[in-house]
Amino acid sequence: MEVVSNRYITIKGHINEGAPKESDFEIKTESLVLCVESDSNVVIVKNLYVSIDPYQINRMKTHCSSHQAIEAAAPIVPGQAIEAYGVGKVVVSGNPKLEKDDLVVGHLKWEEYTVIKEVDRLNRLDAMGFPLSYHVGIFGSSGLTAYAGLFEICKPIKGEKVFVSAACGSVGHLVGQYAKLLGCYVVGCAGTKEKVALLKEKLGFDDAFNYKEEADLKLALKRYFPDGIDIYFDNVGGEMLEAAISNMNNFGRVAACGVICEYTNDEKKATPNMIDVVYHRIKIQGFLSPDHFNIHSEFMSATLDYLSNGKIHCLEDISNGVESIPSAFIGLFHGHNIGKKIVKLARE
Amino acid sequence: MEVVSNRYITIKGHINEGAPKESDFEIKTESLVLCVESDSNVVIVKNLYVSIDPYQINRMKTHCSSHQAIEAAAPIVPGQAIEAYGVGKVVVSGNPKLEKDDLVVGHLKWEEYTVIKEVDRLNRLDAMGFPLSYHVGIFGSSGLTAYAGLFEICKPIKGEKVFVSAACGSVGHLVGQYAKLLGCYVVGCAGTKEKVALLKEKLGFDDAFNYKEEADLKLALKRYFPDGIDIYFDNVGGEMLEAAISNMNNFGRVAACGVICEYTNDEKKATPNMIDVVYHRIKIQGFLSPDHFNIHSEFMSATLDYLSNGKIHCLEDISNGVESIPSAFIGLFHGHNIGKKIVKLARE
Repeated sequence: MEVVSNRYITIKGHINEGAPKESDFEIKTESLVLCVESDSNVVIVKNLYVSIDPYQINRMKTHCSSHQAIEAAAPIVPGQAIEAYGVGKVVVSGNPKLEKDDLVVGHLKWEEYTVIKEVDRLNRLDAMGFPLSYHVGIFGSSGLTAYAGLFEICKPIKGEKVFVSAACGSVGHLVGQYAKLLGCYVVGCAGTKEKVALLKEKLGFDDAFNYKEEADLKLALKRYFPDGIDIYFDNVGGEMLEAAISNMNNFGRVAACGVICEYTNDEKKATPNMIDVVYHRIKIQGFLSPDHFNIHSEFMSATLDYLSNGKIHCLEDISNGVESIPSAFIGLFHGHNIGKKIVKLARE
Repeated sequence: MEVVSNRYITIKGHINEGAPKESDFEIKTESLVLCVESDSNVVIVKNLYVSIDPYQINRMKTHCSSHQAIEAAAPIVPGQAIEAYGVGKVVVSGNPKLEKDDLVVGHLKWEEYTVIKEVDRLNRLDAMGFPLSYHVGIFGSSGLTAYAGLFEICKPIKGEKVFVSAACGSVGHLVGQYAKLLGCYVVGCAGTKEKVALLKEKLGFDDAFNYKEEADLKLALKRYFPDGIDIYFDNVGGEMLEAAISNMNNFGRVAACGVICEYTNDEKKATPNMIDVVYHRIKIQGFLSPDHFNIHSEFMSATLDYLSNGKIHCLEDISNGVESIPSAFIGLFHGHNIGKKIVKLARE
């Protein structure tokens, strides 16, 4: 009976104040027997790629209003391995539907091997000739979030003016490209010169700017959108949300996707001008991708087509090894990632 | 040729800070010849009832983001008579579609007689046996605002939990009653004991409270909605909006109808928790009644039916005489009105 050493990442305690730091995390090791009873339905997966997402910080807090909203946002218990979306390979299977060496995608953990008891948390993966990491990012919840947030929440029309914040992030870079493919005018913002260049030169955004170089975000947006904003895809909240709302046209729509400014600093809460919201008939709509599985096949078919024809670029930022997970995660809060942040845990 | 003295209300200058006060207004008198050229399309109306609405304060400011949003929000020029919705009687008509003594409803002014050059700003009124003032309030934009905001923006389902602020106001008291008639659980808030009693005893709200007696609005709403709020009809903005959002259920909807807290105090801006908005998939939607004329006949037919069967009560607060307009308007910002505030300018 093979026994492996399984390394996993935990938080030492809840992280309630400020951005996460290395000392908040701990890498633990356990011995794992690679054996399951037949027909137990239990599967052991060797994890290949795991997703690193900012929203996990809310799960690491003692209290957060997100905890009760949806199962995937449930609080994380210090000392225990941390659930995360990912791709892996079946090592041993007590489930008749999965065999050794099957590739799977679903709810794994920030660890090298994951024991899965609830079979519905995994799906067999057909890589369709794409890198396995794509199934964590663009074909995973980042892609569906971008697609559903743009098309279902904002219902863009060709020619409309679209603004995307964190536009080089896992979701943002896809939103901008989907909107461009529809024929919208798209401007993104990001936090470095390199990212701004990438948006304009590689991803085909009509324009982009570095928000750190702007003293007044309202004026900056007025400059980039002299005719106003129709759609704001909000990944950050805070001051940028206020600035976008004050520049919106009548019947503008805000897809509230993420609030990274506010996750680690309660004082950065946005105070949007509600007079604008009322008179310009602005819609601000929070959303989560699991509610939009009804359009999953439409999303996949469009995205596969765009990728196959080179019409969309998938930005990935991959670190190596379970020990790199804390710094990969921490980096999200300092804008270190370009595109989807993923950690590769083992060779395919 | 009859000449009358026409008294009208103006602002002396823009009102940019704080609540309006008597000294901001002035009553002027002009002589008006009651004569129009035939086929000039010009009509002179003797005004009977005019609407007194909080949103007018935004038109009185030098700058407000509302000014460009919709024609009805255009800035008011100091010294000129102030447009307002109302009911009147045709005195002389140069328009073949209207005759002397016809009752009309539409865009009049805070004055005793109004000369109307754009015929499409008036409609001939069939009072249908209801008081003429009803055509300023419940059958006017207050009624359509309540109906469209509740049904079109919030799409309530029987049994859902509905919270209404300024629940004794022109719009709020109707929203609560419409929601009750659908079978929702409805709680309203208001600013006096008398209003709270009215909501519970006369209007059939399930519960009501005086927000001035609550030290912590979040805790108050938690007490009144132990199972959370599904719909918040927001007439006030500010701290109440924050409190409502923090108590909302998944897929909650906020109809952003008015922001009276913020109209006269920029520092009372709401800082809604966007983490709640995202995770609970809350929709905050600004709206204005003119966008919802497509459901006008449905609204009228339902409301006529409810009124005829005594299922809905129409609260009105009527002052007399053009000289009472400034205090009627000022009173809105101190919660003096109970129901729709109207000024009666002449005997019918």
